[in-house]
Amino acid sequence: MTAEIITIGDELLIGQIVDTNSAWMGEQLSLTGIKVHQISSISDNEEHILQALSEAEKRVDLVLITGGLGPTKDDITKKTLCKYFDTNLVMHEDILEKIKDFFDRRGFKMLEVNKQQAALPENCTIIPNPVGTASGMWFEKNNTVFVSMPGIPHEMKRIMIDGVLPKLKKEFDLPVIIHRTVLTYGVIESELSDLLEDFEKNLPQGMKLAYLPSLERLRLRLSITGTNRTELEKLLDEQVSNLKKYLGNKVFGYEDSSLQEAIGILLKDKGQTVAIAESCTGGNIAHLITSISGSSEYFKGSVIAYDNSIKQTVLKVSEQNLIKHGAVSKEVVEQMALSVQKLMKTDFAIATSGIAGPTGGTGEKPVGTTWIAVAVPSGEVFAKKYVFGTQRSQNIRRASAVALNNLRKRLLEK
Amino acid sequence: MTAEIITIGDELLIGQIVDTNSAWMGEQLSLTGIKVHQISSISDNEEHILQALSEAEKRVDLVLITGGLGPTKDDITKKTLCKYFDTNLVMHEDILEKIKDFFDRRGFKMLEVNKQQAALPENCTIIPNPVGTASGMWFEKNNTVFVSMPGIPHEMKRIMIDGVLPKLKKEFDLPVIIHRTVLTYGVIESELSDLLEDFEKNLPQGMKLAYLPSLERLRLRLSITGTNRTELEKLLDEQVSNLKKYLGNKVFGYEDSSLQEAIGILLKDKGQTVAIAESCTGGNIAHLITSISGSSEYFKGSVIAYDNSIKQTVLKVSEQNLIKHGAVSKEVVEQMALSVQKLMKTDFAIATSGIAGPTGGTGEKPVGTTWIAVAVPSGEVFAKKYVFGTQRSQNIRRASAVALNNLRKRLLEK
Repeated sequence: MTAEIITIGDELLIGQIVDTNSAWMGEQLSLTGIKVHQISSISDNEEHILQALSEAEKRVDLVLITGGLGPTKDDITKKTLCKYFDTNLVMHEDILEKIKDFFDRRGFKMLEVNKQQAALPENCTIIPNPVGTASGMWFEKNNTVFVSMPGIPHEMKRIMIDGVLPKLKKEFDLPVIIHRTVLTYGVIESELSDLLEDFEKNLPQGMKLAYLPSLERLRLRLSITGTNRTELEKLLDEQVSNLKKYLGNKVFGYEDSSLQEAIGILLKDKGQTVAIAESCTGGNIAHLITSISGSSEYFKGSVIAYDNSIKQTVLKVSEQNLIKHGAVSKEVVEQMALSVQKLMKTDFAIATSGIAGPTGGTGEKPVGTTWIAVAVPSGEVFAKKYVFGTQRSQNIRRASAVALNNLRKRLLEK
Repeated sequence: MTAEIITIGDELLIGQIVDTNSAWMGEQLSLTGIKVHQISSISDNEEHILQALSEAEKRVDLVLITGGLGPTKDDITKKTLCKYFDTNLVMHEDILEKIKDFFDRRGFKMLEVNKQQAALPENCTIIPNPVGTASGMWFEKNNTVFVSMPGIPHEMKRIMIDGVLPKLKKEFDLPVIIHRTVLTYGVIESELSDLLEDFEKNLPQGMKLAYLPSLERLRLRLSITGTNRTELEKLLDEQVSNLKKYLGNKVFGYEDSSLQEAIGILLKDKGQTVAIAESCTGGNIAHLITSISGSSEYFKGSVIAYDNSIKQTVLKVSEQNLIKHGAVSKEVVEQMALSVQKLMKTDFAIATSGIAGPTGGTGEKPVGTTWIAVAVPSGEVFAKKYVFGTQRSQNIRRASAVALNNLRKRLLEK
């Protein structure tokens, strides 16, 4: 079974709203074994909607539509659907009661336009909306199913979960599509593709590998389609293990995890703690770590020593090192890591010092030059130099990811 | 001039990635006076790409394409474009040099697949990518312009800003659309709309006001379309001044500024400095402040005292206060602010302590409860309690914005 998603609304086209509905619906359909062929965002325009519906009808078995079901004048989806399916609106008293109730509970006044939301196309199956006033509508035409839902994300999700997905599973014989995502860091796409040449060649028939890179992780997604879920899951799990053999500790997690989650799991397992001394990353590493709920178990704190005076007074970096080697140096970043480890009495510590840019670079130390250190429980400290790019925000993100990954690698050591 | 946006990638269809590129491109095109007709996300499939290009060509004057330009096997956009535009790949030695340099700088090994990124279609105009290895490509066919760009957001944005938008403005006679954005914080949309009732009524003919709220700012965008740029600019500037009269210090900046930029400007003007003591915001305030280039002039540093022991040892918060009032209290957050002000010898200091959630709330202090303090040069400290929502990431963002805005208000005092 194939599907298309059509999201309706001028606000999507002028970029006032990011269309997060489509990604969510796409994921739900994929997980249900329905292949998403295309996602289209179109304007609140009758002709455009009619054309998009007609094109999608020719291509796929299922069309999910969101948006344009509100009570105001620019919401024309319902009227347009009546035209497309050659039908009329009928008032549903039971739904009108529910809408009245919805307004009463919130203490809002119900207007005539709200009453009109209980008028629905005669030839559709109504999919109830338990959290709003615009109902879902299920139509069938020439063997294609069309479902229209409101664009408000939490209303659309409830209609999908409670009504649309169960009905699809009941009425159609769907194949099984499964995905597994393996997360890596520290190896770029092309090198990984080299490392995985044999792995890719020997993948079971019908299994696909996709590379999805970003600044903080490179996701490797394995996908397979078939009929027997247990069998497919077994096949995928085998290849996930196999991939792990090829990549070893380059793999830091699975599915939607992150480096900060990975180090959190390792630290919790060991009952150990970490502190940070940040200069060029300016608090971003601490921010990433504390974005994880429960991080207070292993993260004690951070000193952001942005000004050199703070490096000296709070982190006890020697004036000599600052003068002789500069703030962006092995000597200084090592002292920062060891000091914060001692100050906050933690097992591990990480420290960063670099030139985030876009200005401040020199011939010897261009913008992007960054020293990153990890102090370990034995009292040893390991520092390494990196040269990132010229963009400030990216340098901060890259340095943060490398720092977390370097800590992760130390945490994996016996 | 009308445009369509086509984003290519299976990961978009199965919902593994939310397509944020389209919204950004849609906004940029709208601001440039180009109407976006449709946004489509399609799969990494030759036939599908060819069909989407051909359909868009019939409908619009400009087609922006992103995705599928990576070095791996599943990236087929470039090959498919060659087919569509009936052309061949030609190796560009100058681009190859840049790619080599890109890898050298990062200390990565360049592979054959990376070299291939310098092979580009013969009949396209190359739009340079200053921050990556996949170039932008500008094609023309039957009076439609097609531009293909990589899907990595920061690379696409640089190619658009440096190359595509200037070229569009140069080569096409676009209508003049001008916008001015006024940034406010601390007043909700409905209240602002009340305050601005008269202002909106008296706007010159054809001028529009849009409210664009987010967690960190509420943008008020004034827009006008016409032909005489100088005249339109004068009209807009008058209304911007007028708006400032209505809103006073609720306005913190203009265009794409931010609260962190606003406090930076104020601190630099005064030659004063700030330090932070963060608990629940976990480094996010420092991260926001240091995202601004030049922040080292006024930001000395931060202590992230996530664990209570750090509040005691580094920030000298009394054990008595922690036991009697708890970490999330007026007493503790005031001590944190005053301590870090003293420790880092700054004029101002801000401090946060709260329950970010989703767990950790109590009846008396539910999730979202947050104390925020600002210490000023006189040695006084002002603390206030807020109760945000239940979502961790949003609570961190809200608390950070409120803290920055409270500092801003203190900086504006005589």
